[in-house]
Amino acid sequence: MIPERLAKLRAEMKKRNISMYIVPTADFHESEYVGEHFKARKYITGFTGSAGTAIITMTEAGLWTDARYFVQAAKQLEGTTVTLYRMREEGVPTIEQFVEEKLGQGECLGFDGRVINGKLGAEFKKIVEKKNGSLYVDEDLIDLIWEDRPQLSKEPVWVMDEKYAGESVASKLTAIRKEMEEKDATLHLMSSLYNIAWVLNVRGNDINYVPVVLSYLVIAKKFCIWFVQEEALDDTVRAHLKANGITTKPYDSFYEYVKTISTSETVLLDKGVVNYRIINSIPKEVRLIDETDPADLMKAVKNPVQLENTRNAHIKDAVAMCKFMYWLKTNIGKIPMTEISVSDHLAKLRAEQEGFLDLSFDTICGYADHGAIVHYAATPETDRPLEAKGLLLVDSGGHYLEGTTDITRTFVLGPITDEEKADFTRVCRSNINLQATRFLYGCSGMNLDIVAREPFWEVGKDYKHGTGHGVGYVLNVHEGPNAFRWQKTPGRNEAARLEEGMITTDEPGIYIEGKYGIRTESELITRKGEKNEFGQFMYFENITYVPVDLDAIDPDQMTTVEKQRLNDYHAMVYKKMAPLLNKEEAEFLKEYTRAI
Amino acid sequence: MIPERLAKLRAEMKKRNISMYIVPTADFHESEYVGEHFKARKYITGFTGSAGTAIITMTEAGLWTDARYFVQAAKQLEGTTVTLYRMREEGVPTIEQFVEEKLGQGECLGFDGRVINGKLGAEFKKIVEKKNGSLYVDEDLIDLIWEDRPQLSKEPVWVMDEKYAGESVASKLTAIRKEMEEKDATLHLMSSLYNIAWVLNVRGNDINYVPVVLSYLVIAKKFCIWFVQEEALDDTVRAHLKANGITTKPYDSFYEYVKTISTSETVLLDKGVVNYRIINSIPKEVRLIDETDPADLMKAVKNPVQLENTRNAHIKDAVAMCKFMYWLKTNIGKIPMTEISVSDHLAKLRAEQEGFLDLSFDTICGYADHGAIVHYAATPETDRPLEAKGLLLVDSGGHYLEGTTDITRTFVLGPITDEEKADFTRVCRSNINLQATRFLYGCSGMNLDIVAREPFWEVGKDYKHGTGHGVGYVLNVHEGPNAFRWQKTPGRNEAARLEEGMITTDEPGIYIEGKYGIRTESELITRKGEKNEFGQFMYFENITYVPVDLDAIDPDQMTTVEKQRLNDYHAMVYKKMAPLLNKEEAEFLKEYTRAI
Repeated sequence: MIPERLAKLRAEMKKRNISMYIVPTADFHESEYVGEHFKARKYITGFTGSAGTAIITMTEAGLWTDARYFVQAAKQLEGTTVTLYRMREEGVPTIEQFVEEKLGQGECLGFDGRVINGKLGAEFKKIVEKKNGSLYVDEDLIDLIWEDRPQLSKEPVWVMDEKYAGESVASKLTAIRKEMEEKDATLHLMSSLYNIAWVLNVRGNDINYVPVVLSYLVIAKKFCIWFVQEEALDDTVRAHLKANGITTKPYDSFYEYVKTISTSETVLLDKGVVNYRIINSIPKEVRLIDETDPADLMKAVKNPVQLENTRNAHIKDAVAMCKFMYWLKTNIGKIPMTEISVSDHLAKLRAEQEGFLDLSFDTICGYADHGAIVHYAATPETDRPLEAKGLLLVDSGGHYLEGTTDITRTFVLGPITDEEKADFTRVCRSNINLQATRFLYGCSGMNLDIVAREPFWEVGKDYKHGTGHGVGYVLNVHEGPNAFRWQKTPGRNEAARLEEGMITTDEPGIYIEGKYGIRTESELITRKGEKNEFGQFMYFENITYVPVDLDAIDPDQMTTVEKQRLNDYHAMVYKKMAPLLNKEEAEFLKEYTRAI
Repeated sequence: MIPERLAKLRAEMKKRNISMYIVPTADFHESEYVGEHFKARKYITGFTGSAGTAIITMTEAGLWTDARYFVQAAKQLEGTTVTLYRMREEGVPTIEQFVEEKLGQGECLGFDGRVINGKLGAEFKKIVEKKNGSLYVDEDLIDLIWEDRPQLSKEPVWVMDEKYAGESVASKLTAIRKEMEEKDATLHLMSSLYNIAWVLNVRGNDINYVPVVLSYLVIAKKFCIWFVQEEALDDTVRAHLKANGITTKPYDSFYEYVKTISTSETVLLDKGVVNYRIINSIPKEVRLIDETDPADLMKAVKNPVQLENTRNAHIKDAVAMCKFMYWLKTNIGKIPMTEISVSDHLAKLRAEQEGFLDLSFDTICGYADHGAIVHYAATPETDRPLEAKGLLLVDSGGHYLEGTTDITRTFVLGPITDEEKADFTRVCRSNINLQATRFLYGCSGMNLDIVAREPFWEVGKDYKHGTGHGVGYVLNVHEGPNAFRWQKTPGRNEAARLEEGMITTDEPGIYIEGKYGIRTESELITRKGEKNEFGQFMYFENITYVPVDLDAIDPDQMTTVEKQRLNDYHAMVYKKMAPLLNKEEAEFLKEYTRAI
């Protein structure tokens, strides 16, 4: 199947004299996950993972993906003629290196300019110029060969009430216009679906698990135009838009609009987010200010209403998780369970909560060695029966009207090894020490990450992912700029300060291939603490209210201070959650939140 | 006196139609400390501190300096008509803001283009262009009015033998030429005195405590020219230069040389270091590559010979320090001592060590509340008698043929308060925990700094300086790029990786104004540790062999692990140092390195 598709693509390339064609995993908006319509890379390679880039030449086809997907990709690419390029492995060229090496003098490089951001597009342009070659970016070749391609999603838009959003659209527009004025910008082009949903207090359902609306937004001093699929809007939404002075235009008329921007305008946009075709469509004489969208930071700093709502969402989520923990640990070995069946049970418990909207991502439920696959999602083929032994890692979350949750707990299903217990205790120390950190205002997650790494690094171990990410508010569960990471990642701002009101996950783990995986994840609100002659101190409020399974804790490995931190956390969990559970569950909770 | 000098300067400004003149603390080489000839800012303001910038207009004169010097500057500026601008205080304009605000439309801004680096000069140029004004940078107005100005230093140059340098000049030139080739640079202009001394394996004495040679260096593929004051060279040096194919030209002919650079050349230089006049003198058609000097990193990574030498230098230095500690603590209250007299005694003990060259900086010896002044240097006016009570902070170091040292110990002279003891113990925990950190290769000091801050931040305290800096090898005691800092500082690269062979200080402290100051400083070599499936782990080797005064340690404040770390350190100190001391000193050392 894949070889036929590649042959068709090559035929279209040949017609246009294109020597190399790039198909990334992207929509027109630099979204982290994409809707079905946008899964072109999956279509052309057969690889289904969430991240990867395909490059096709007349004689070769390659897929670049990261360590999370090496095993899966190797399997799915069998028989496709597509070569797997393991990103960041020694000796493996980067995408840019491959293009530079394989594109011949005077040759043409093609991609759909709408699915490559402005910054990356400019890099490809540089390479092409070095080769005296050309770019072909105004057509989507995959669209020509993909016969049963899913339509663009146009799910109904809904208005997020101010009692949930905590700030009016007018107030948000004022704040953005103030930033534009400070930068001397007269127009602000937004294409980030998260930021648009945030500004307009609207949500939709155009990406699985991410309640956004496919659209673009243009903000000027005196007007605001939303380029959106009109069929997705009902009267309530229209009234909301009208009340806020927002006019609408068709989604796909945006590129024509951009061409008509007056040369007297100064346009603020983020080339790392806005796509290459948009940037190329703006008349060359228009002055561009390439900066981070001010909405990024505004959206990341949750207001007091959002914070209070989020705490409530976490209480509901914790009710589901505590019930799940009780059910799982008292029934294991007695009733049949598999990774998928317990995920479904947990989803049902969440769905029973008032205000539940959807899961916030595909549940990761990995038993035994499956736990070591960081982004494991059970399929009917891989699904495994659970036994009364070993560890089960469950990373899950929900969208509620009041906010989004993301939590990981690893549960003990029966006897475990000393090694598992020692590592579980390390993960717990790491998680509990980071949340207990006090720090001066101005610190970034880059400064703090080592607090979580210490229990691992001191014994020569590590986990190969960030310690935490920002969390959206009924939006993408992964949000920037706040994060806990020690390494710089291109396009990310690890040095962004931790501001009061930001919410960040705290999720250290350990993964021993072929044996087990452990992760413990809480969400932390950054709060202001004491201000004294030394400065403004900050601390974290832990808003995840679910026990860390004491069956795998070895108290002898913990310092007195660490034990106290865990005990304080568990006492808080018991106090908050016990009244919301039935008698058996509450008794179970008491046992699992006991002081050690 | 200062008002008269200002009047003379203003007369010269008026003749040239200059509205504003900037006098920084700098030589032509962006050195941290400057020779007597270059102390123009001190001459025009009367302020003697090591850092500060003066700005003079027809009606105002201002001095910008940082928190270390607020008290001293306020006092020294009394009666001078010069206003003190306290840098980084709320509401105080930065230098750039002041220039932008006060320079009128079409006015002329002046400074000596040789004492402002290329990057800063370009910023001033931008401001001036906004004002449709002009720059006047080709003359040093201070030189016109400073009658008894000290001559340029031209102290004798000496050759550092390869048994000390650990690498030949030929090898260093090859390494730099390789980097030039990779960057397509045909010429490399160096003006950093530290880097030039490092490349050429020469030292001098043109800056107090910093054994450098005033000079510029040009490296091309086929030649290498050293612009140096010829009087400073003897036959040995000339032979060394000849053997390495290095020709010399007069120091002040450099600016004329630069004007003759062929337009076919591509010049590598660091605009943050190379001065504005040099950059402006290069023909406009010459392509410049503005990048960090590759010698920065090469110099910071000490080779095995340097590391072994440095360990030996530290043993000698520790002999002096251990003898000093014994002498101080057994004689306090019995014989007269003052801050200056004990500093002199310590200097004498260092001078007795074989291979001693000089102190590596002006000793900081602060008794009681003087310890809270971070860069305190006792003067006859401030010198204070020491009594048998309280704390004495001594931050000192030496240059030896085999390397440079920097060490701080705070000594207990008699009864101390509980608060002092608690803070002393915190400083010790901070110091000992940072040196015990294990981390993955790729970490910078920015990742690690919080390990040292934790004991302070957890109780709402802090110290307002970096935790550590790189140390030169018979060069400036402060060296980059390695450092332990959590905040970004313009012009510094806090994210520079900690490479094997770098030497960095570990010097947390606490300063309670009007009461006491405590600092404990060791030097750490970055070493490679275990390499396993998680990556390359790194650790620190502590090469400072002097006890932390146990009289101020409260073991109850320390965890078992922290006590073990201190005990291990002290056991190592005893083992290394006892054989090198006399019987009484060795017995004293045994007591002060006992396990707690």
